[in-house]
Amino acid sequence: MPQESDRYLVLAEGKLGIFDAKTAVSLIRYRPDAVVAVLDSVRAGETTRDVLGTPRAVPIVATVAEGLTHEPTALVIGIAPSGGMLPEPWRGVIAECLAAGMDVISGLHVFLADDPEFGALASQHGGQLIDLRRPPERYPIAHALARETKALRVLTVGTDCNIGKKITALEITAEMQRRGMDARFVATGQSGMLISGGGVVLDRVAGDFMSGFIEELVLEHGDADAVVVEGQGSIVHPAYSGVTAALLHGALPDCMVLCHHATRQPMRAQMTPIPPLPVWLDIYEKIVAPLHPGKIVAMSVNTHDLEAEAAERAVAECARISGLPAVDVYRHGPAKLVNAILAHGKAPRA
Amino acid sequence: MPQESDRYLVLAEGKLGIFDAKTAVSLIRYRPDAVVAVLDSVRAGETTRDVLGTPRAVPIVATVAEGLTHEPTALVIGIAPSGGMLPEPWRGVIAECLAAGMDVISGLHVFLADDPEFGALASQHGGQLIDLRRPPERYPIAHALARETKALRVLTVGTDCNIGKKITALEITAEMQRRGMDARFVATGQSGMLISGGGVVLDRVAGDFMSGFIEELVLEHGDADAVVVEGQGSIVHPAYSGVTAALLHGALPDCMVLCHHATRQPMRAQMTPIPPLPVWLDIYEKIVAPLHPGKIVAMSVNTHDLEAEAAERAVAECARISGLPAVDVYRHGPAKLVNAILAHGKAPRA
Repeated sequence: MPQESDRYLVLAEGKLGIFDAKTAVSLIRYRPDAVVAVLDSVRAGETTRDVLGTPRAVPIVATVAEGLTHEPTALVIGIAPSGGMLPEPWRGVIAECLAAGMDVISGLHVFLADDPEFGALASQHGGQLIDLRRPPERYPIAHALARETKALRVLTVGTDCNIGKKITALEITAEMQRRGMDARFVATGQSGMLISGGGVVLDRVAGDFMSGFIEELVLEHGDADAVVVEGQGSIVHPAYSGVTAALLHGALPDCMVLCHHATRQPMRAQMTPIPPLPVWLDIYEKIVAPLHPGKIVAMSVNTHDLEAEAAERAVAECARISGLPAVDVYRHGPAKLVNAILAHGKAPRA
Repeated sequence: MPQESDRYLVLAEGKLGIFDAKTAVSLIRYRPDAVVAVLDSVRAGETTRDVLGTPRAVPIVATVAEGLTHEPTALVIGIAPSGGMLPEPWRGVIAECLAAGMDVISGLHVFLADDPEFGALASQHGGQLIDLRRPPERYPIAHALARETKALRVLTVGTDCNIGKKITALEITAEMQRRGMDARFVATGQSGMLISGGGVVLDRVAGDFMSGFIEELVLEHGDADAVVVEGQGSIVHPAYSGVTAALLHGALPDCMVLCHHATRQPMRAQMTPIPPLPVWLDIYEKIVAPLHPGKIVAMSVNTHDLEAEAAERAVAECARISGLPAVDVYRHGPAKLVNAILAHGKAPRA
């Protein structure tokens, strides 16, 4: 999927920020050369360096017409509204891009390719409608086979959704590669897929086959040195725990890295408090243990909203409570996480 | 859905047995008046009383032509092959029934209504193709709202799939109703839907929305005295744990009944051993606890393959290990389960 020639106009209308336009922000950070402009009329005229502090200053534009001056080949829907529906005002943006012959890449739950208006426009102007969330038409059933891989299996898990599991997995993979390892990132969401070119949008797969798809992906990379799987949701999330459980048993990790947001309370978009760290440390290992003795070996702490000193205190507090190495991957880099993973290594076969 | 006038021909070809044709066996047991004949060429000439010991002796026939003499209104696909595909030899059976003007009701993962040949036959002869597994086109996100119901919430959980969770939930509901309670059964699989006329086939719902559908169903019955939710899978099943986790957090039970098969080892259709009972007693409560303090209050032990004395010993052993009341619902009835549920009552709001 990702190609050198990709030139993306990324739709982030009114939402450009670290937690509100995940796909947009991930692409700008991990495929900076592919993003030629961001569409957000609220921040138009600024650049992504101003708004997000990214190394590259990608222009932010107010209209599709302005975006077209940067010669994009595809519009990427860079926002994932809760529920995954298509907000009505975006229809015009999508239609305008299709009329300009562009592809449209979407991670929404509603499939653009099933929309008659968009379908007609795409075929008329030669663009493609790419729905990242459409699951493959296969029905794999997992059989706890992931535990047979030669590769060290790593999974990021979290105390909430939207907390840094994808970023942590990407940074761990990159650090392993810098150390000369054949490490593979397995994407389980739309942003990860756009970054890595593989994977599956797990939350859109039917319940019975979620673990099966993950098992397939892990086995596909089973001969590498390490497979680093992007986590999803959390194991006690009111809405998304099913996706997390399937991921745990599909991947059967040797090592888990617990991702946590230092100041978040309650859970995002929920009225429920985030339980204290010891609950998470206990439950993630307990639910995997009957199939494989995977361990939480380190913590990745998101401190984006704290000043430097408070951030250091927050990370140190997580290390103290968990008894594990802890870092903020953006502040400290992923080296300590990879050290902890490699020190633990593969868990003995259950 | 279920109506007095339903007359089902149930397809169970070569599989009629307690564990191999779940939908067929459930229908024969819980809607005996609706089943006019069973199609299974291997046992043709016998009756369901001979093969399954059901009170009513439903004829078993070898061919559709023979089945038609019993004037069925619909063919029910009574077998759920792992993976949910349509075995090739069944195509002719379905086509023959459609050509006779019958409806066809299916719980397979592949949707019959999307099959051009079947679609054409159905519209030509006036029959309907009913795919129980097709999820509603809605995208509900759960918010841990089930815990607000006036109704006592009960969920059957298990140490494996295909172990008695549906039967246990049905028997508990019936016993509560016999005691004058307004108790509602919530189906989460195709057989339960055919029996109760409501519910959702949870394993076919996309990951993000599984809990949401369950939450909706529980709230729909929230003013009853009790909502008894049919469990699915198991929380450490390699393939189906995601469905189970979603069910736990969508329903947020006050009381759980742990369903267990006394002699089964390893897990069905898996190479993985079933962990010992203390693991299950611990993990089901732990995963629910952060959102609601639900408890396992009793055990339902499946001893269908044991002689009476061995069965009594097996049930007593489960009671000893768990410290909970235990019964085989078929041998002992559900009274002790309902006693335990009512003695515990609603858990305090977390």
